[in-house]
Amino acid sequence: MKIPPSSIPRISRYYRVLLSLKDPVVSSQELADLTGSGAAQIRKDLAYFGQFGRPGKGYGTEALKQELKKILGIDRNWAVALVGIGNLGSALLAYKGFKDQGFNIKYAFDNDRKKIGRSRQGIKIRDIKNIPSVIKASGIEMAVIAVPQSSAQDVVDMLVASGIKAILNFAPAVLKVSDGVELLNIDLSIEMEKLTYFLQRNKA
Amino acid sequence: MKIPPSSIPRISRYYRVLLSLKDPVVSSQELADLTGSGAAQIRKDLAYFGQFGRPGKGYGTEALKQELKKILGIDRNWAVALVGIGNLGSALLAYKGFKDQGFNIKYAFDNDRKKIGRSRQGIKIRDIKNIPSVIKASGIEMAVIAVPQSSAQDVVDMLVASGIKAILNFAPAVLKVSDGVELLNIDLSIEMEKLTYFLQRNKA
Repeated sequence: MKIPPSSIPRISRYYRVLLSLKDPVVSSQELADLTGSGAAQIRKDLAYFGQFGRPGKGYGTEALKQELKKILGIDRNWAVALVGIGNLGSALLAYKGFKDQGFNIKYAFDNDRKKIGRSRQGIKIRDIKNIPSVIKASGIEMAVIAVPQSSAQDVVDMLVASGIKAILNFAPAVLKVSDGVELLNIDLSIEMEKLTYFLQRNKA
Repeated sequence: MKIPPSSIPRISRYYRVLLSLKDPVVSSQELADLTGSGAAQIRKDLAYFGQFGRPGKGYGTEALKQELKKILGIDRNWAVALVGIGNLGSALLAYKGFKDQGFNIKYAFDNDRKKIGRSRQGIKIRDIKNIPSVIKASGIEMAVIAVPQSSAQDVVDMLVASGIKAILNFAPAVLKVSDGVELLNIDLSIEMEKLTYFLQRNKA
């Protein structure tokens, strides 16, 4: 069965809601009320992954929570490499939320001689040239990149050649990866500009 | 003419590319090669906002850059309120990229007595209770929120009642705003879970 990519962020939201639920059993209608998705949508999303709960009886909260954790791959910790320790990279390195969610930034890389060898947040900053040896030896599959646009594709190519399979990209660049590698983009300036466009338009 | 919301992030990308172009004139085909959008798409997106360039002659790089800045509302600086100075909020406060793009975090709010009254990055942290008076007096229209899920809707309601018209929300919550207010959501954990889902699935 082909699972639509749009179901994954919804599964994340169902999981978030389950975290704060106290009832031992929850219906798809209750999940719908709490997440804003429709009850039919919820049943469909869950059905992609197996049979959970019993028709008319609802889902066991704890069991469903554990199943969703497994589906999302967050029933374990993940080591992450962070490339680019500029303004945004430093902020991401300091962001404790990653660790709370089981994402451990294990290696940090930059190409600035003044930063290489120093430690930030207890993580040593390594030369970007060492990406191949360090990543290959570590077996890390996940990377976050926050480098300038001009070097983003080179960094991505280096990461993918070293075995990275999933990348969260904060660089404002249109990047290409080979099949079998997942690339997601978050461009904060593009999001801010959606807002200023909206504000500007309403003034015009 | 109705402008599709999807054209705005593309306009942002055209603008990014223009920033690093040295040629005084650029064709839609060149912009297409640099942005990954099709040339026809680019001409269509620009046509929503007026007539730029001359058919067969291309666009004047500098003139188009200035026009796109105006369209995106980034031909001026914007004052921003930041609510929630926890892990992520602190990281956002330290992120200099906002300022470089003309977004000045002018006010910071939190409800933690230990933080209120202190300064971070030169910004005084104020009591969240003072949002109405401070925001109304300042005339600020843009806010970034990084509060826990449980208080996110209350904070949004308070901001909107105080005159905020555009919100970038990092809280992992499904939030409602009234018509005439633009709300964008960035949920870092949902993005990370799209990646772990992908990695997990490929192992299964």
